[in-house]
Amino acid sequence: MSAIGANLRGKFIVFDGTEGSGKSTQARLLRDAILKEGTVEVALVRDPGTTRLGERIRQIVLDPENAEMAMRCEMLLYMAARAQMMAETIAPALQSGNLVICDRFVSSTLAYQLGGDGLTADEIRRVAQVATRGIAPDLTLLLDLPAQQSLARVGREKDRIEQRPMEYHEQVRKNYLAQAAADPAHFRVIDAMREPEAIHADALKALTEIAR
Amino acid sequence: MSAIGANLRGKFIVFDGTEGSGKSTQARLLRDAILKEGTVEVALVRDPGTTRLGERIRQIVLDPENAEMAMRCEMLLYMAARAQMMAETIAPALQSGNLVICDRFVSSTLAYQLGGDGLTADEIRRVAQVATRGIAPDLTLLLDLPAQQSLARVGREKDRIEQRPMEYHEQVRKNYLAQAAADPAHFRVIDAMREPEAIHADALKALTEIAR
Repeated sequence: MSAIGANLRGKFIVFDGTEGSGKSTQARLLRDAILKEGTVEVALVRDPGTTRLGERIRQIVLDPENAEMAMRCEMLLYMAARAQMMAETIAPALQSGNLVICDRFVSSTLAYQLGGDGLTADEIRRVAQVATRGIAPDLTLLLDLPAQQSLARVGREKDRIEQRPMEYHEQVRKNYLAQAAADPAHFRVIDAMREPEAIHADALKALTEIAR
Repeated sequence: MSAIGANLRGKFIVFDGTEGSGKSTQARLLRDAILKEGTVEVALVRDPGTTRLGERIRQIVLDPENAEMAMRCEMLLYMAARAQMMAETIAPALQSGNLVICDRFVSSTLAYQLGGDGLTADEIRRVAQVATRGIAPDLTLLLDLPAQQSLARVGREKDRIEQRPMEYHEQVRKNYLAQAAADPAHFRVIDAMREPEAIHADALKALTEIAR
């Protein structure tokens, strides 16, 4: 492959998908491949998390003890963590011309919280616009996996969201695929049932396209 | 005074204003006066707080250790606590025909977070609409106090918001008064420099008007 890093300066790439789809593995593989070229600095972040405050909010939102959490509260907590990460990490990195690789983003909220307590895509997008100041990914790589496979891969105690029933997780997968279908210019769907190397090759190919 | 409680069934009343303006004292005095009539049940709540999750979010937002918190994160945390309180407490109480008396609400966010990190009133209102499902107070009683007086009355260690400079708190007061001036049908401004009994009498008078 020829060097693509130089054309990825100031770009914002998201890996998204259900649990166990290999997002964090792929985010690391991509970072390492780009860093090896030495043409652009890379900020690797995860949403929710990354910042000290984001990790604190993440704990609340994933704690199985918080069973009574309303869906609108859950959605707003994700957005609060995202706003902090945007202000503290993503926006400064993009302004410095770095490549930002993010594990989950607004597309996760549009998959997991959509429809809960009547939440519409429009409502989620309006809040996201305020949380992110309108900064959106250049490309989202959707790692697609059947829900059954997805949950079987969670190799630890399930968090509050993962504990939800199978139909919920099947709907989440559909919500992801619907987003990708509605916005092909900003999404690539990658079959995540394959080996990490094959997925990584597809991710690099997708980036080569946007880096032109 | 003649009984007004029966006409306050399912009404949503907010006490708002700067620190030390007597909001929680007045909220309790009002609740006690209405309960004495025995014509309507009263739910007394505080924002942020009231719910277990709301109190946990409140701790994060007020902790002076969280100095790096971005204004959009702060705003969204307040909204998350509010969404939980709306779903868990306020909406069910209103549906049961109770009178809800709330210490602070969206009007606080429009006073304290407005302008921070470029936040506009329109952005805050759009997020509030999603957090509250559009349920808004029937009347907000604004307890008005000069900023200097307000902070002098804080009889404990100052929290993260209270620690901000005097110009900030003067602007907060202006933001409150501007909201009241723009929406006289839903606000009453009450001079909070007076004795609690005089303030309470004004609050009761304002309620008598909307209870007609």
